[in-house]
Amino acid sequence: MAERAPHAPLGVAVIGAGRMGADHVRRIDRVISGARVTAVVDVDAERAKAVAARVDGCTAYTDPVAAMAAADVDAVLVASPGPAHEAALLAAFERDLPVLCEKPLTPDAASALRVLEAEQALGHRRVQVGFMRRYDPEYARLEALLRTGQLGRPLMLHNRHRNVASPPFFTSAMLISDSVAHEADATRWLLGQEITAVTVLRPAPSANAPDALQDPQFVVFETDGGALSDVEIFVNCGFGYQVQAEAVCERGTARIGDGHALVTNTAGRWGGTIAQDWTERFGTAYDREVQAWVDAARHGGTTGPSAWDGYAAAAVCEAGVTALREGGRVTVELVEKPALYR
Amino acid sequence: MAERAPHAPLGVAVIGAGRMGADHVRRIDRVISGARVTAVVDVDAERAKAVAARVDGCTAYTDPVAAMAAADVDAVLVASPGPAHEAALLAAFERDLPVLCEKPLTPDAASALRVLEAEQALGHRRVQVGFMRRYDPEYARLEALLRTGQLGRPLMLHNRHRNVASPPFFTSAMLISDSVAHEADATRWLLGQEITAVTVLRPAPSANAPDALQDPQFVVFETDGGALSDVEIFVNCGFGYQVQAEAVCERGTARIGDGHALVTNTAGRWGGTIAQDWTERFGTAYDREVQAWVDAARHGGTTGPSAWDGYAAAAVCEAGVTALREGGRVTVELVEKPALYR
Amino acid sequence: MAERAPHAPLGVAVIGAGRMGADHVRRIDRVISGARVTAVVDVDAERAKAVAARVDGCTAYTDPVAAMAAADVDAVLVASPGPAHEAALLAAFERDLPVLCEKPLTPDAASALRVLEAEQALGHRRVQVGFMRRYDPEYARLEALLRTGQLGRPLMLHNRHRNVASPPFFTSAMLISDSVAHEADATRWLLGQEITAVTVLRPAPSANAPDALQDPQFVVFETDGGALSDVEIFVNCGFGYQVQAEAVCERGTARIGDGHALVTNTAGRWGGTIAQDWTERFGTAYDREVQAWVDAARHGGTTGPSAWDGYAAAAVCEAGVTALREGGRVTVELVEKPALYR
Amino acid sequence: MAERAPHAPLGVAVIGAGRMGADHVRRIDRVISGARVTAVVDVDAERAKAVAARVDGCTAYTDPVAAMAAADVDAVLVASPGPAHEAALLAAFERDLPVLCEKPLTPDAASALRVLEAEQALGHRRVQVGFMRRYDPEYARLEALLRTGQLGRPLMLHNRHRNVASPPFFTSAMLISDSVAHEADATRWLLGQEITAVTVLRPAPSANAPDALQDPQFVVFETDGGALSDVEIFVNCGFGYQVQAEAVCERGTARIGDGHALVTNTAGRWGGTIAQDWTERFGTAYDREVQAWVDAARHGGTTGPSAWDGYAAAAVCEAGVTALREGGRVTVELVEKPALYR
Repeated sequence: MAERAPHAPLGVAVIGAGRMGADHVRRIDRVISGARVTAVVDVDAERAKAVAARVDGCTAYTDPVAAMAAADVDAVLVASPGPAHEAALLAAFERDLPVLCEKPLTPDAASALRVLEAEQALGHRRVQVGFMRRYDPEYARLEALLRTGQLGRPLMLHNRHRNVASPPFFTSAMLISDSVAHEADATRWLLGQEITAVTVLRPAPSANAPDALQDPQFVVFETDGGALSDVEIFVNCGFGYQVQAEAVCERGTARIGDGHALVTNTAGRWGGTIAQDWTERFGTAYDREVQAWVDAARHGGTTGPSAWDGYAAAAVCEAGVTALREGGRVTVELVEKPALYR
Repeated sequence: MAERAPHAPLGVAVIGAGRMGADHVRRIDRVISGARVTAVVDVDAERAKAVAARVDGCTAYTDPVAAMAAADVDAVLVASPGPAHEAALLAAFERDLPVLCEKPLTPDAASALRVLEAEQALGHRRVQVGFMRRYDPEYARLEALLRTGQLGRPLMLHNRHRNVASPPFFTSAMLISDSVAHEADATRWLLGQEITAVTVLRPAPSANAPDALQDPQFVVFETDGGALSDVEIFVNCGFGYQVQAEAVCERGTARIGDGHALVTNTAGRWGGTIAQDWTERFGTAYDREVQAWVDAARHGGTTGPSAWDGYAAAAVCEAGVTALREGGRVTVELVEKPALYR
Repeated sequence: MAERAPHAPLGVAVIGAGRMGADHVRRIDRVISGARVTAVVDVDAERAKAVAARVDGCTAYTDPVAAMAAADVDAVLVASPGPAHEAALLAAFERDLPVLCEKPLTPDAASALRVLEAEQALGHRRVQVGFMRRYDPEYARLEALLRTGQLGRPLMLHNRHRNVASPPFFTSAMLISDSVAHEADATRWLLGQEITAVTVLRPAPSANAPDALQDPQFVVFETDGGALSDVEIFVNCGFGYQVQAEAVCERGTARIGDGHALVTNTAGRWGGTIAQDWTERFGTAYDREVQAWVDAARHGGTTGPSAWDGYAAAAVCEAGVTALREGGRVTVELVEKPALYR
Repeated sequence: MAERAPHAPLGVAVIGAGRMGADHVRRIDRVISGARVTAVVDVDAERAKAVAARVDGCTAYTDPVAAMAAADVDAVLVASPGPAHEAALLAAFERDLPVLCEKPLTPDAASALRVLEAEQALGHRRVQVGFMRRYDPEYARLEALLRTGQLGRPLMLHNRHRNVASPPFFTSAMLISDSVAHEADATRWLLGQEITAVTVLRPAPSANAPDALQDPQFVVFETDGGALSDVEIFVNCGFGYQVQAEAVCERGTARIGDGHALVTNTAGRWGGTIAQDWTERFGTAYDREVQAWVDAARHGGTTGPSAWDGYAAAAVCEAGVTALREGGRVTVELVEKPALYR
């Protein structure tokens, strides 16, 4: 890792230019703050080039090691297929680069252990694994609530994980290793406990499941804290993508994922919380507003509510204040709308 | 506006370093992509310096015109008090700089008209007014739904706008000009119609309203399309900050703001939509995940799910696949947790 | 009114054998306890006979006065058209019979005053008016909550009243006198205040409203307690029958009618209550169960869960208790299902 | 069973005068139609007398056989403790009386089989078992929806059964035999399948469970149709009584019991149905209204909305119709409220 000015953006090499990798390139370039994509790596050179071309000052590579050696690469995002992860991680460790590694860390426990050992040899953590549910606002609120202890100790966790349809290559084992892997992590994270045993129950498959696919499945995890976590995994449910979790605790339950924000059952009441101010309710709106303005301004344009909208609101409010003071109905008179705002 | 490299970040002067201005500085510096704060302006020099000091390469000013003349200023965000907006806007027009102007555009219709005229003299739009509800995901979904015409023409809009408590300086007129101003814009935007008349009804004030404050109020807007829009404004409701809107159309209604996402009534059904894939459900989680990784990496650290978490998930999934294949309960064996991950 | 044994069922004359009257006959005969229909009255003799024939021991009349004179008539239910109400009420007062009078009491205020005077001359109340919303479980919970004063004084009431489609004879005035009449009573009852002024706003009619019908309308009531009550009345909304009310009080709001039970906003929380025991949650189920059994037994039959269902549950529970005690999976063995239960 | 006039009320002997028996006596006497309690039986003669005394014309017994022999007894409701059920059922079969038998039918499968055999010897069904959830409006809607086949074949059923606290005598086995017994029947009824195996999982007990009580438990039923039905039973949850069920089918899911009516997930939409007319929405209100009137009239009184309420509504509607016709605000003038209505 070359010297980097303290406030300069982080230069990121994205390894893997498939759907997930390309989406991360877009995210770093257009959405988040403080980083830029300086390298895109893919075994398919054309694919690497196509994605790299979308970003100013970004180079395409086919070799991850070469990319990591570049002077403008400060960090690595691994979005290649699982079997390629171990080599990429070890290469990043060679250069002590921070890595965001899409899940799975590696495809099996033995290779994962080798990664653990290599990271320990570094003497400090360098890997963040892509269990992104920990960053979902609803999961984060559920975890925060459990951590307060208000509901008492968690006894059970009921999880639902439903996809509209599975891709053609999906196998019965992948319902566990690809899908339920998320609930394995969510269970460990929400409960703060390790999983000690697994049972998988097999209801009669849905007629909508491809031939020979065991779908749905019902998985039960037991933990070293004595909790149970059950998972309905149903990857051909047909109606939508739905991820739900309900924590059942000693003094109440808390549920996320069904079209509400976090809903709790406590002491005779079900329901959720109400924001206490506008920063909580409209924080995202402010972020999007300013981003929209910046995006337009960088290309020389102007978007969003116009000065005409500002004028019209002012005229309406003036009339409203008169109506408040004098009672009755007050008409609003606007000048003719100028051509610029039509 | 100086020449700017096509992909360089936009240099922004933030005018006003109060609560709102400082929050926009943080937003541009830490949250959004493609811009950096190069100038902070406030009549209070100390306040300007304190806020500017939080951002690398940012200069403090007391004079907006001086800030706008700086080589590294490409755009202006106006977050000063309303009476200062007109001068700032006209100065920005002098330099043809794009402006994001917090609402109100100006405090009254006459001054707003002067701004309109000045912008027309430029020949192109340069002002985006800070009606941020248009960027709220719920409002945006409501507007998009209305625009499809699926529900038919909108006939009425019912709005609720509730604050926990009003600040000490709040007057009865400010319930209109400061609070209902948002609904004035939302009504115009959602319906695509201008407001032609206003009536303000005054129920007996709440015992929790400060002396002499007319709170709540009930405002009825009429539009040039024949629609009605009623607004409950209640700034001392005590229980929370709540903004709701229900559009009543010819073939159904759609409501936002009560702890659900958008809820519609149509053809014998109430309810909402279910995401169709993970990009829709977990897009925000991915954004936050990568931002958390970048923020940690820029300071030399690592955060979030560790390689241990990746290993544990791999071990659990291996056991799960065995349980699926062989039936029954399969125990999960983990190596002892290394010190690095404790 | 003849002498009636103290615990004998109440003999009821139902006046009016149209849709509403016939439904009340069915209700008294089949659903509620302690009464029987002994007379059905209609100006159309055939219609009276047809309805009376459904009930054992019930006589058809064309003259209300003759019916009220019958020895087996203890009470009168008036379900005839509104213009016929005054005469029926005065006739019932003559015999001091208790009356349940469908709304409206009479079609106008002047005739209603005459009824009031006649009842006062009796010296005691004899009329219950059919404002049945007061008996709706949701409205009753809302009223009970307001009466506790927990939410403080009610300041505003927002009402929605929507019908799929209006009947052909419906006029713009009937939206007020036939539909909003319910909200007029609900406002008075929920707030415990009299209405002192009415305003009716007319949005552009829906394309689905019949020619010349002003639909929807938006009505604002003011009360002698300083509260406002607004009513959206929309009788051709197309999607369903929906009646909603939200009371906005000094310390919270409470809403009924949108697919939940009562939902409140209070002190940072939205939501509803959870039943505390099975009598609250399943009271209606017990009532229906026993009614189903009685209805079948009176006709010599047996319905509902059979002895086979009882046996199967016993066998499952035995296996369950074994599974609890011994761990693992326990199979359930049933005898072959006998022919009687197939 | 003596000759009974075809339309005379059914004479019911209630066996068992404890909490459940007494509640059924009240229900038959005051709530439902077509039956009267003619006998109350309890081994405790005083208890039988006390309950019988509440009903006119009702006799107390200590011997069920004697009660069944009475001329005014047409049917038997068994609400005694489970071990007494078999004898009562066989005695009722002797007289060919219809029986509503509270669950459990009998305490174990062997005795239940003997009851089955005795009923078959009669040649027709005489027993309705008290699985009252089949009569709950929400369960009934769920069952009806499943029966339509709209959602496809049911694959899984997720059940939650929570009580605030268990009574002192409750044992771990009773969580199965007393509580989960309801879900055993609900599973069989909703799915139309027999249960073939049971597994009971034991999470670490809640700190709020009495010593040595295994609470909560997690029960998994397998059925002969290949479906799974899991049950969370938690009898010391502390916060309320909550019974929920979600059926997961091939093309959607349907859930009851969480403060909404039936909520489905289908084809990109979650939500519920909207009533199509007032008979559906307000049927219960009409039933309660007429019952309240009858109850008051039988005791010589009058209750509910008064003629004054009818007059006030008429006056408000008159003003409303004027306001509609003429525009603007119309005041409502009422006469002074007469003493009779204060």
